[in-house]
Amino acid sequence: MGKVGPGINPTPPELNEAAGDWKTNELLWITKNDMRMSGMPAWGVTFSDDDIWTITAFARKLPTMTQRIPGVEQSEAFDEGEVALVDLPTFRRIPRHVAFIPDGNRRWAQNRGLRKEESYASGLEPGFQLYDICRALGIEELTVYGFTSDNTKRPPEQTAAFQQACVDAVEGLSKLDASLLVVGNDDSPLFPPELKPYRTRQVLGNGTLKVNFLVNYDWHWDLSKAAIDVSGTTSGMRRSFMERIGSSEVSRIDLVVRWGGRRRLSGLLPVQAVYADFYIIDDLWPDFKPEHFFNALRWYESQDVSLGG
Amino acid sequence: MGKVGPGINPTPPELNEAAGDWKTNELLWITKNDMRMSGMPAWGVTFSDDDIWTITAFARKLPTMTQRIPGVEQSEAFDEGEVALVDLPTFRRIPRHVAFIPDGNRRWAQNRGLRKEESYASGLEPGFQLYDICRALGIEELTVYGFTSDNTKRPPEQTAAFQQACVDAVEGLSKLDASLLVVGNDDSPLFPPELKPYRTRQVLGNGTLKVNFLVNYDWHWDLSKAAIDVSGTTSGMRRSFMERIGSSEVSRIDLVVRWGGRRRLSGLLPVQAVYADFYIIDDLWPDFKPEHFFNALRWYESQDVSLGG
Repeated sequence: MGKVGPGINPTPPELNEAAGDWKTNELLWITKNDMRMSGMPAWGVTFSDDDIWTITAFARKLPTMTQRIPGVEQSEAFDEGEVALVDLPTFRRIPRHVAFIPDGNRRWAQNRGLRKEESYASGLEPGFQLYDICRALGIEELTVYGFTSDNTKRPPEQTAAFQQACVDAVEGLSKLDASLLVVGNDDSPLFPPELKPYRTRQVLGNGTLKVNFLVNYDWHWDLSKAAIDVSGTTSGMRRSFMERIGSSEVSRIDLVVRWGGRRRLSGLLPVQAVYADFYIIDDLWPDFKPEHFFNALRWYESQDVSLGG
Repeated sequence: MGKVGPGINPTPPELNEAAGDWKTNELLWITKNDMRMSGMPAWGVTFSDDDIWTITAFARKLPTMTQRIPGVEQSEAFDEGEVALVDLPTFRRIPRHVAFIPDGNRRWAQNRGLRKEESYASGLEPGFQLYDICRALGIEELTVYGFTSDNTKRPPEQTAAFQQACVDAVEGLSKLDASLLVVGNDDSPLFPPELKPYRTRQVLGNGTLKVNFLVNYDWHWDLSKAAIDVSGTTSGMRRSFMERIGSSEVSRIDLVVRWGGRRRLSGLLPVQAVYADFYIIDDLWPDFKPEHFFNALRWYESQDVSLGG
């Protein structure tokens, strides 16, 4: 019988036992303030903190129900020990590479009477949830739009806030399994220096999921990288051009999912997005629900992939 | 009293008189088989052919009604002399540059039991109607996706059909007022040789409307043009890169309108589309209705233009 509460550190087998009849495609999220754990039973969840955790889980066939994890004994202090169980659907065809544009943070803050710069921290946990879902579904590569050099024209307190959110996101990712590359213009003072090591792809944990994170990204910087280095040869230009752009390590995008209702790329990776399908969600990013992404994937299943041919 | 029929050539004042109380933002289309005339009363419409014409007009406040043009006397042979009068709406804010992706021709043909290659000719008249609407609304620049080098992977009879449709479109445009540039890889045998003169922008008529027509366009050809010519200098790269791409004369796109339900760029001008708003119409392109574009423009009115700032 697993126990969750102060001073108790269930080990993965204990949790799996506690979880009882969970399916391998059910996803467990455990978060408490800025601490988080996540995993599927098959991944071997471990607890690294002895504080109280809020437990949230995805599970099959209980889309809206809130219930306790079967077999998990509640400690007295564990007053947030209920779990919302949400089905993790299966899909006939999933995109290999999905790009996410998590827009609408500032509008979300304004709707709540917060200052615009107070919005970005609320965008972190949804990002980790997306990471978990992508990993659970077997998506191979994901790209997240952090901020672009265009965004840095905003007031300095906003710029500072989304720069910090990007640093925090990478800090969080560094504890997970990801092959992480930060793509952006790091010659600029607007690029957070803490992220410079990730300008070369870093394998974190077992690195199963390729994650590209756009930080101080600039589409013009990206493309003109190809122009800077090339001499007058025309032979082999196709390979040469694609190998020389600033984002050469980012593959072709199959699906772009954008929150916040805008129907535009806003400068996201023009080369990789040439054939991508776009799916727009009207809800604002901090109001992320897993169902948003599931709906995008259900829509994507019905799209052909012709690349113009 | 104007007259339309065999052997009668009304002059512009006669037509304006015949049109009676038409407003300056009402649009007149006159088509008969492959002959066409169009204009607004203010443009001074002239008739260049003494054949019978079918008259179709946009006019105010009669969105679905079919009626005769007031004051135009019908000749006996003029059995198609009824006009469908459709309001040409006014907009608070219109895009400066709109790109059109006229997709769905092949599905349209299949729905009618036609061969796929029989669809493209039916896409011509809608294109001219869009030209007329853009001109009437004061849109400054429009780009039309003819075909890309990706499309030429299709069966040769289809490729031949859309190549011919592009030649016919330019032939039609050459009788109108347009500043026409064809953008595409003309080093390839897939580029129709008749269109080579338009690889340099040609002013046709009074050239009020800038028209860019993508013919054998290839996003990679476009971007790598910048790489081919540039030596190792880094100074002034922003200007230099933008001036050296293959589509350097095509300006930033404000709005992309796509028919046929697909939500993707399909390789359309990646540099110019980085900030563009996308509007998707589920109807197939040969089923074009002016209301499609008006709906797109109504939606566009409510979008902000932030360019990421």
